[in-house]
Amino acid sequence: MNQQYPSVLLEKAVGEFAKLPGIGRKTAMRLVLHLLRQDAQTVEAFAGAIVTLKREVKYCKVCHNISDTDVCRICSNPARDASTICVVENIRDVMAVENTQQFKGLYHVLGGVISPMDGIGPSDLQIDSLVERVKGGSVKEVILALSSTMEGDTTNFYIFRKLSGLDVKLTVIARGISIGDELEYTDEVTLGRSIVNRIAFTGTM
Amino acid sequence: MNQQYPSVLLEKAVGEFAKLPGIGRKTAMRLVLHLLRQDAQTVEAFAGAIVTLKREVKYCKVCHNISDTDVCRICSNPARDASTICVVENIRDVMAVENTQQFKGLYHVLGGVISPMDGIGPSDLQIDSLVERVKGGSVKEVILALSSTMEGDTTNFYIFRKLSGLDVKLTVIARGISIGDELEYTDEVTLGRSIVNRIAFTGTM
Repeated sequence: MNQQYPSVLLEKAVGEFAKLPGIGRKTAMRLVLHLLRQDAQTVEAFAGAIVTLKREVKYCKVCHNISDTDVCRICSNPARDASTICVVENIRDVMAVENTQQFKGLYHVLGGVISPMDGIGPSDLQIDSLVERVKGGSVKEVILALSSTMEGDTTNFYIFRKLSGLDVKLTVIARGISIGDELEYTDEVTLGRSIVNRIAFTGTM
Repeated sequence: MNQQYPSVLLEKAVGEFAKLPGIGRKTAMRLVLHLLRQDAQTVEAFAGAIVTLKREVKYCKVCHNISDTDVCRICSNPARDASTICVVENIRDVMAVENTQQFKGLYHVLGGVISPMDGIGPSDLQIDSLVERVKGGSVKEVILALSSTMEGDTTNFYIFRKLSGLDVKLTVIARGISIGDELEYTDEVTLGRSIVNRIAFTGTM
């Protein structure tokens, strides 16, 4: 299909869109032709938003979450419980936990998990700054909310060792069958952990 | 989910992506965070490609296809048959026909079809310039390749009336069951037309 593009400029724009994850050349073409039908101002607003984001975005000095200011809205919010830190892998995980509206503490964004296969070691992650925060003394609990993968478990264990000896409670989010899941379709490892980590039934879930 | 975005800049970029057809807020977020992980140069190349396209793209003076030059590659190609013009709705249709590698003539891009419901009348389309091209005298056949919809049929009929009296053969692309389609799942109108417009079987398809 490539050589039949009527325009080099079109080809370039489609090529750029097609680099995005989950966007093939057909979808890229559809998106580009959609933008081409908009007026110049709309197209420049689109392009400008992403360039400005990349150029001006900051990361919170405290938790490394994305932010418009040096310290993010969550870390600087006096209504949040500064004694509890939830450790997550990335910005999307912060948003996922925020959306549950179940957590009122602060976050710590690692920027990934330990993954020797991908060449990511502890020094590539924000683990030292987490230890510093805990050493600050006001932190009572660190909740590990990483992915339930081998890399996530490795990272959990590394953080556990780094924080051992410090006066802080270390917890891990519960793993188990998802709300609404049927038992027979749950994988055996998850189901096994669910049984081992069963909790007292109090009449409500 | 809206108010929980950690950054106004992020919110803006996601909002712009979410305006694209078929892109919801979750996908928009995924795309923006992907771009955010790229280096500044990559992000600017992405944004630049679409702005440059919008700013510098030309439309062929002859056929109104997208082009980098005043007259497009197809119209200026001496190897193409200038006596046959295929009338299509938009740029994507040109590419679709080109991809079949079955057509060696030129195109004429209308820029849409007559659709009173959407406020598109004949004067909004490149119909007059088609008539001028045919009046030029070197065109022997005009192939109507519009969508098989009421609007497409209306436009076909309008062009038919405009070209009547001129010395040009007017044809319509065949409608029928698609290659590989099973008869029982074909809608009755298509199947009916297929039967009425049957062609002599010569041993090959």
